[in-house]
Amino acid sequence: MDVRDLEAAARGVLPADVYDYIAGGAFDELTLAANLDAWAAIRLRPRVFRDVSKVDLTTSILGVPVSCPIAVAPMAAHGLAHADAEPATVKGATNAGVLSIVSTRAGLPIDDIAPAFGGEPWWFQVYVMQDRGRSAAMIERAIAGGATALVLTADTPVVGRRLRDVRNGFTMTVPTANRPTDQDPSVTFDDIAWLRDLAGEVPIVIKGVLRADDASRCVNQGAAAIAVSNHGGRQLDGAQATADALSAIVDAVGGQVEVYVDGGIRRGTDVVKALALGARAVFVGRPVMWALATGGAEGVEAFLNELREELALAMALCGCPSIHDVTSDMVTPPRA
Amino acid sequence: MDVRDLEAAARGVLPADVYDYIAGGAFDELTLAANLDAWAAIRLRPRVFRDVSKVDLTTSILGVPVSCPIAVAPMAAHGLAHADAEPATVKGATNAGVLSIVSTRAGLPIDDIAPAFGGEPWWFQVYVMQDRGRSAAMIERAIAGGATALVLTADTPVVGRRLRDVRNGFTMTVPTANRPTDQDPSVTFDDIAWLRDLAGEVPIVIKGVLRADDASRCVNQGAAAIAVSNHGGRQLDGAQATADALSAIVDAVGGQVEVYVDGGIRRGTDVVKALALGARAVFVGRPVMWALATGGAEGVEAFLNELREELALAMALCGCPSIHDVTSDMVTPPRA
Amino acid sequence: MDVRDLEAAARGVLPADVYDYIAGGAFDELTLAANLDAWAAIRLRPRVFRDVSKVDLTTSILGVPVSCPIAVAPMAAHGLAHADAEPATVKGATNAGVLSIVSTRAGLPIDDIAPAFGGEPWWFQVYVMQDRGRSAAMIERAIAGGATALVLTADTPVVGRRLRDVRNGFTMTVPTANRPTDQDPSVTFDDIAWLRDLAGEVPIVIKGVLRADDASRCVNQGAAAIAVSNHGGRQLDGAQATADALSAIVDAVGGQVEVYVDGGIRRGTDVVKALALGARAVFVGRPVMWALATGGAEGVEAFLNELREELALAMALCGCPSIHDVTSDMVTPPRA
Amino acid sequence: MDVRDLEAAARGVLPADVYDYIAGGAFDELTLAANLDAWAAIRLRPRVFRDVSKVDLTTSILGVPVSCPIAVAPMAAHGLAHADAEPATVKGATNAGVLSIVSTRAGLPIDDIAPAFGGEPWWFQVYVMQDRGRSAAMIERAIAGGATALVLTADTPVVGRRLRDVRNGFTMTVPTANRPTDQDPSVTFDDIAWLRDLAGEVPIVIKGVLRADDASRCVNQGAAAIAVSNHGGRQLDGAQATADALSAIVDAVGGQVEVYVDGGIRRGTDVVKALALGARAVFVGRPVMWALATGGAEGVEAFLNELREELALAMALCGCPSIHDVTSDMVTPPRA
Repeated sequence: MDVRDLEAAARGVLPADVYDYIAGGAFDELTLAANLDAWAAIRLRPRVFRDVSKVDLTTSILGVPVSCPIAVAPMAAHGLAHADAEPATVKGATNAGVLSIVSTRAGLPIDDIAPAFGGEPWWFQVYVMQDRGRSAAMIERAIAGGATALVLTADTPVVGRRLRDVRNGFTMTVPTANRPTDQDPSVTFDDIAWLRDLAGEVPIVIKGVLRADDASRCVNQGAAAIAVSNHGGRQLDGAQATADALSAIVDAVGGQVEVYVDGGIRRGTDVVKALALGARAVFVGRPVMWALATGGAEGVEAFLNELREELALAMALCGCPSIHDVTSDMVTPPRA
Repeated sequence: MDVRDLEAAARGVLPADVYDYIAGGAFDELTLAANLDAWAAIRLRPRVFRDVSKVDLTTSILGVPVSCPIAVAPMAAHGLAHADAEPATVKGATNAGVLSIVSTRAGLPIDDIAPAFGGEPWWFQVYVMQDRGRSAAMIERAIAGGATALVLTADTPVVGRRLRDVRNGFTMTVPTANRPTDQDPSVTFDDIAWLRDLAGEVPIVIKGVLRADDASRCVNQGAAAIAVSNHGGRQLDGAQATADALSAIVDAVGGQVEVYVDGGIRRGTDVVKALALGARAVFVGRPVMWALATGGAEGVEAFLNELREELALAMALCGCPSIHDVTSDMVTPPRA
Repeated sequence: MDVRDLEAAARGVLPADVYDYIAGGAFDELTLAANLDAWAAIRLRPRVFRDVSKVDLTTSILGVPVSCPIAVAPMAAHGLAHADAEPATVKGATNAGVLSIVSTRAGLPIDDIAPAFGGEPWWFQVYVMQDRGRSAAMIERAIAGGATALVLTADTPVVGRRLRDVRNGFTMTVPTANRPTDQDPSVTFDDIAWLRDLAGEVPIVIKGVLRADDASRCVNQGAAAIAVSNHGGRQLDGAQATADALSAIVDAVGGQVEVYVDGGIRRGTDVVKALALGARAVFVGRPVMWALATGGAEGVEAFLNELREELALAMALCGCPSIHDVTSDMVTPPRA
Repeated sequence: MDVRDLEAAARGVLPADVYDYIAGGAFDELTLAANLDAWAAIRLRPRVFRDVSKVDLTTSILGVPVSCPIAVAPMAAHGLAHADAEPATVKGATNAGVLSIVSTRAGLPIDDIAPAFGGEPWWFQVYVMQDRGRSAAMIERAIAGGATALVLTADTPVVGRRLRDVRNGFTMTVPTANRPTDQDPSVTFDDIAWLRDLAGEVPIVIKGVLRADDASRCVNQGAAAIAVSNHGGRQLDGAQATADALSAIVDAVGGQVEVYVDGGIRRGTDVVKALALGARAVFVGRPVMWALATGGAEGVEAFLNELREELALAMALCGCPSIHDVTSDMVTPPRA
């Protein structure tokens, strides 16, 4: 099912306030819209007469071989969308050969989710909580459960205000391992060192960066990768679109670490644009929730397979038989 | 209540022609719309990993300590919106720790408004009237009543034409201390000196400036501050949006005097954008009238508290724990 | 009555096909819309603290003193709009102190129109027809009737296709002195000399120029003025908006001859923008027809008086007490 | 009938899924819309006072004299639109003096179509199929049937996904000589040489190029012309609009070979814009199908005659009496 039809179908099966909680953004949803518009505004410059009889989408993310440069973004409380919750998402993604990032705000304990990976690599998203001991305990459990990287979210020192939720009187009905108020707004770059010590060999990805200077500081503090993100437009309304912020960050740190991007990725062509702007991979969020809502694990698997098919098609039509063929000249210059 | 819901609620309780009088702008309302669009077009570039456990919004405006860089813009005839009129606005703002600017065209005599400040500083907006003696008398009464600055409006040598009012046959039903026709269209920069003599130690803010050259001349004539304004789009339709005019004026006089801005400020993020472009503070107009219309003094207090909360949230999400952290690199470049 | 209400009222009283004939443009009406959009996109940069107690709108056009820099554009067959036809337009404009340009395609003979001017100066618009003798005869009659300038239309070697008329099956029901097919598509710059000889002392304005190089050639051939025009979007659809073409032509020939502009002028602020871009005067077309349709001579007079009032208001709010105060820095830079 | 009315009429007579198949584009139809928008955004800068009493539209395309720089784009299965199928299109175009390009995916064998040309030159569009022998056989038959050029499509190594067709469950009901799956996705620039050998003296046009570097490589491999195309927005959604891609390709290879363009050409003014950007000719697709659907051969002839009339009108209004008068300064600069 096409991603737009998928969203419509999910809207049909979800309670209105749950749909709004997942679909919505902060305040006037300027950034929510800007994320989508920014990808659409970038134009592709396809090559012709390249042998694309085989399009190889395989790549690696922090050394983990993956079927394509697409991962499932960390999202809270999958149980809102489907009774099978996170294990269903994990199962669907893993079957599709796609890496999943489990949220600290998952609706189930890590120990109930980790087995669904069946030994495949997965990442765990973390917040630094006010109670560092609790953070440490969660991280240790995640690593014990097989998490191969930690994704530290940087853009949520406090929680953004989403007017849809306010108007709907929405309250989270799924228990999550931490509440937003547990998060510590006093975290600074120095805390990356604390996390790094805790993580040992497990690499740390910093997610939620929109500025090149901040990206450089993260790398200097030991980050293994940067995820350019504005939290899907759910945090600071008016924040720059991720597609517009990506290039400067790639220019600053792309030579040293991997850079990912999320926010508004809906099509295989969006993935090609992200790669052309220097991203190593993209994270996809809301569409996975729509797939989960409408089809459970199978829905997630089908959607991710379809998105990968779209990417393969886009690559073929761009004359790019492999990921490293997607160079910066594949797109018109993005907006400053 | 969210500012957009607040406006809708006010529209519900106000007579249609009064709503239009407050909401409307000159002619085709190009500038009214441009003011809003210009803030929305500016993108924020948030910082991460700064300690924002405490966000300090306090600042000073012309030496007056305030709870946040937000003031209530001068507006005519608050009695149109609510029977409690200006004293209610003043009380609400003062309770919220927000500076108010009382309009010469207030619907009550200064002596009936001033006590509502309870000794807190306030500013008085003035026009130079054709009858200078009357102007002088009003100014003297304002200073005697505690006004700590005079805000001379520069953009109203004659009154703009607002088609909503023409079509509605709207006439001002609240008595105001002067009528627009009392204003003197022959005022020049030299009259600032007249006002300065009259004002003594009380500083003079020039409001309604959109050009750097004019701002410089005002400062040379002794202005203590410049308020970049196009009268909320109510005067010259087609005038540049204030967000687009701000930077050049800050560049010209920002090193010498404080610069404020109004026109289209609706969100905490708009305030951050204004600060990033060099404003010392912003003035908010229409939303205060919506709050007054729907909730009297308590409505005004609640709205201003909410706007300050929005600002605190925006600052935290921008990684700015204090006002002076909001530097020019927090925004993408504005339009020329 | 406001110009937009005026158009709505005219639409109410005119047969639909006549309204469409006057309102419409060529093909997809891209240029019709672009003309309006281009004025709206220019932003004013008003001055403050100038003595605008008296705003002097008087100026001269080719040496003719006029009450304001506004003239009535040449338009065909005013009888379509009102039974009183051209004499009513002339009377209304003359009463308002506004110069009129009578079209070769007027619905009445020149001899029936000229007396309505009551001895005031007026201009006559001409085409070079295939039958030069007929052209010469018309021109001689116009000069005998008091025409003080000839306006040679350059943008109509053939007639544009207006789909509204095609769809409506519209045919001109008012007899006009020439038919479009009488026009000579072989006219070149050299024919200006033919006209110049015929005109004697009467100056020649070339109307319908959008390029600086063409404007220069017209001036070299003896043109006394250039009117930047795309025939109100009725000829070449996709032609550049006049507001966008004006500056380059002023730069090229503005030092030698007067430059006028038409197309989309609806507001006093549009006139200020045109003056700031270097125009000596503007021509107004369709709104005059709406005024004629709804109010005859009195309607035209009232509309032109109102437009002049709008201009005076705009000038006052721009801090420009006289026409020569409207310098190029009054506007943000136009589009290339 | 105007082209927009023609499309509406075709929509009325065609089954909805067939209309959608012809009208639609890939995925979100971004490129479909961008093609149209890009032509509309280019502004014409008409010349005045040129003798346009005769407008000569004749030109040559690869040495073939044609009545105007317009050709019928290759399109699949004309039988979908009208029972008379390709021979009707050919007959209509030939009667109008317009060159036709027959698609490999025509619904009839070449031998059934070729006679309709009555000895006039025509071009044959080819794919390199996986079964080269079959490709060779088709090409030989086309050349035997009189094809004077081969148009090798470069932008279809795999077939784009069109959501309208997916949603409609559309399947091609007209038998075509090859299926998309016959096409060989492994074709590279080197295969041009294979085709060149096969074609002998018959020149090869490469269609579907959007990049200057690719155009140069095609020319180096012996291409006689380049057709800038994105397959009417039916292949890679998000590909750059052809009007935006044209100039760079003309700059790169326009001095050596002819350059054509298609995608969104609907008006005579669009043709002028294409010529001004350096195209030798344009191809028109969908409108020809609308004409065929509504009027068969006569409909096609009438439409092409009307489009040529529009072009003649646009040329006259641009002051361009012949094709070589349409120089690059006739348009405002295109987008990068």
